Amino acid sequence: MSEVIHTIEQMKEFSKKAILAQKSIGFVPTMGYLHEGHLSLIQKARSQNDIVVVSIFVNPLQFAPNEDFNTYPRDFEKDRILCEQNGVDVIFYPGYEEMYPQSYQTYVEVSFLSKPLEGKSRPTHFKGVTTIVLKLFNIVKPTRAYFGKKDAQQLIIIKKMVEDLNLDVEIVPCEIKRDADGLALSSRNVYLNAKERSQAICLKKALDKAKELIDAKIYDSQTIIQNMKNVINSYDLARIDYISINSTDCLSELKEVVLGKTLISLAVFFGKTRLIDNMWI
Amino acid sequence: MSEVIHTIEQMKEFSKKAILAQKSIGFVPTMGYLHEGHLSLIQKARSQNDIVVVSIFVNPLQFAPNEDFNTYPRDFEKDRILCEQNGVDVIFYPGYEEMYPQSYQTYVEVSFLSKPLEGKSRPTHFKGVTTIVLKLFNIVKPTRAYFGKKDAQQLIIIKKMVEDLNLDVEIVPCEIKRDADGLALSSRNVYLNAKERSQAICLKKALDKAKELIDAKIYDSQTIIQNMKNVINSYDLARIDYISINSTDCLSELKEVVLGKTLISLAVFFGKTRLIDNMWI
Repeated sequence: MSEVIHTIEQMKEFSKKAILAQKSIGFVPTMGYLHEGHLSLIQKARSQNDIVVVSIFVNPLQFAPNEDFNTYPRDFEKDRILCEQNGVDVIFYPGYEEMYPQSYQTYVEVSFLSKPLEGKSRPTHFKGVTTIVLKLFNIVKPTRAYFGKKDAQQLIIIKKMVEDLNLDVEIVPCEIKRDADGLALSSRNVYLNAKERSQAICLKKALDKAKELIDAKIYDSQTIIQNMKNVINSYDLARIDYISINSTDCLSELKEVVLGKTLISLAVFFGKTRLIDNMWI
Repeated sequence: MSEVIHTIEQMKEFSKKAILAQKSIGFVPTMGYLHEGHLSLIQKARSQNDIVVVSIFVNPLQFAPNEDFNTYPRDFEKDRILCEQNGVDVIFYPGYEEMYPQSYQTYVEVSFLSKPLEGKSRPTHFKGVTTIVLKLFNIVKPTRAYFGKKDAQQLIIIKKMVEDLNLDVEIVPCEIKRDADGLALSSRNVYLNAKERSQAICLKKALDKAKELIDAKIYDSQTIIQNMKNVINSYDLARIDYISINSTDCLSELKEVVLGKTLISLAVFFGKTRLIDNMWI
């Protein structure tokens, strides 16, 4: 049975006992509506720790007013069953008032890394992410926390926050999970209609094209990005937000791919739905 | 003997052992150049905890470019002896590179509370304070941390940060220490020349006047502030930065003093030296 905890106080009490008993805590922070991507994080946490905690909290702070906070998919009962089936010990499922009481006013920001890529399209997003993640770390006190590479910039920013603020948690990056046709799993994929869904594979196709060029020793970023654009533009419902080639350490734009240190990432709209994908080279 | 620790790693190691041994840690964060005010914090920490840690770090982040970071008084050897004499177990004395390596970029801000009073005159100050204090809390992991009421707004902001970020440390407020003539102790008092020093008592005199009016049941803020101004203006070297009457919870300006919930605070320049003082009513 996964225990469901709603209050910060009870969650802290649980973690305090675990730490005094010298047990390791693996933590998977989520916004719920769990899919195979989340489950792979949970399974990794399960294999590496004494205790596994999953949080489910759709964090209003990381959505801009024009974004999909209200319509973001939620299904706690299904999530609870999936957690049970995957050996989760505790589901931390707090209410909004619990996490952000009325006088709430403290924010954490990782400045430079939050500006490019997703930050350009979503300028307040990462401030919301780092704030909630720091709060969750302080409440759950994990030994290790698991983040998917799908949200590549988020992962890089959280690692930086942990380093800068001298936190003790180890950040464990996890591989992107994909549907059979290559679409990266995302809770937002449910927004796609049938035709959009069939075309959504273009993000992976563009990344495959990039990989093909790099394997042929073509490292020039302009060339790679142009080829990726061509792939996306051959799908009539796809509208490119960005395609970018950046260093994985400071996210600066790269003129040439540097093997082992490069992030190729893109965001593509299908109607109002915005999908992201990436590849670490 | 007080142990001097220079690195974050060693400090963390020390605290980890103490916590596993279920010992309480009392923490006094300072910028050094210790005076009786600091020593009263250390003594309180000593009386309430198994272990006492004092940090000495002049935090560049809380000084604006036009402020006195370079000239801020420093005397580590004297500080070390004072710590020894007052039973401090560990002096955490890190270098700048240790606390802010070159790629450092994470900041914590308590938004509304950082804006009025000191925040008006020093708009980046509290962001620097909350960032370093959070880092120090994460490194030292104190059970209790001690802050003087002299820096009233700082104390209120740090309490709010602790609440908002769900930190476990208990913040212990400590009374203001004063010289025999009433001047609140501050490391910056050394900047005053003899004539300025003799007039610097005007801050306390103005607060005494406020107390006298309140004791006579005069609660109107305008009247109290005007009377305080008159006191300060009778000293020819004093230049008022602000005099303000605020609520102690949200720091909003009060039209009338509310007993038990009011902060009366002021900042006064003597030449380039800026002194602050306050009274909790």
